[in-house]
Amino acid sequence: MEFKLKPIGIVHSPFKNTEDIDSKKYADSGGFDSVQGELELFKEFEDGLKDIEGFSHLVVLFAFHKSEGPRLHTKPLLDETLRGVFSTRSPHRPNPIGMTVVKVIERKGTSLKVSGIDMIEGTPILDIKPYTSRDQKSSIKLGWLEPKMKKT
Amino acid sequence: MEFKLKPIGIVHSPFKNTEDIDSKKYADSGGFDSVQGELELFKEFEDGLKDIEGFSHLVVLFAFHKSEGPRLHTKPLLDETLRGVFSTRSPHRPNPIGMTVVKVIERKGTSLKVSGIDMIEGTPILDIKPYTSRDQKSSIKLGWLEPKMKKT
Repeated sequence: MEFKLKPIGIVHSPFKNTEDIDSKKYADSGGFDSVQGELELFKEFEDGLKDIEGFSHLVVLFAFHKSEGPRLHTKPLLDETLRGVFSTRSPHRPNPIGMTVVKVIERKGTSLKVSGIDMIEGTPILDIKPYTSRDQKSSIKLGWLEPKMKKT
Repeated sequence: MEFKLKPIGIVHSPFKNTEDIDSKKYADSGGFDSVQGELELFKEFEDGLKDIEGFSHLVVLFAFHKSEGPRLHTKPLLDETLRGVFSTRSPHRPNPIGMTVVKVIERKGTSLKVSGIDMIEGTPILDIKPYTSRDQKSSIKLGWLEPKMKKT
């Protein structure tokens, strides 16, 4: 079984390359809050954006297009120990899809100005979904990340 | 540009078909909290599960394998009005990928017993990620869903 996905748009980001991202930001729950960028959808998908302005936050699914292929054990940016890839947000995963929640600032036609961008310029967007109360979880435990994560 | 994805496992769910799911549950932030199921990874991906027990919640990406194809305007289960597909969680989207946050109960080898299951039996799993503080958003606005959603 195989699923074929096509980009619906691209991310515009102040980060041109992965190396431009200060990895300490990943350890801070609000680390990317001030990073603005744009989700630019291809014209053919514009109708799908109807009603989206009412939502404050969106789930963005995107392709890790610079992924170097899966590594089942991987050393996360925030750690010195090899971890199972499914307990990390590493881009080097069996299916290289990323997920980031962004905040909507403004919509203009096919373009959504957002904050919370942690992707690099040119990242292919695969899907956009509204972030709802069902995605808000409290009393969470963070495993190996617990001592490293700064909660704001 | 095209991305090819392969399942890393399958979901075991008490819901055999979409019709078995009471759609009112989607309007309740804790509606699926008591629904238990299993994420069963294929043996070849077992090493990727290292360290996952420490996380209380996981982001599961999966294929909407019963999707009837994209509809840019769609009538959500919870509404009578046509909405843009990207402001809904409809399975009938350009790239039919779903995202659900589940709670970990127990891991046994390649199997994760979880609660919060809103997928049907046999759903192909594409990715599992740890849910972190960066995914927790407060003061959210829910657009057309706002008057319909019960927050618990």
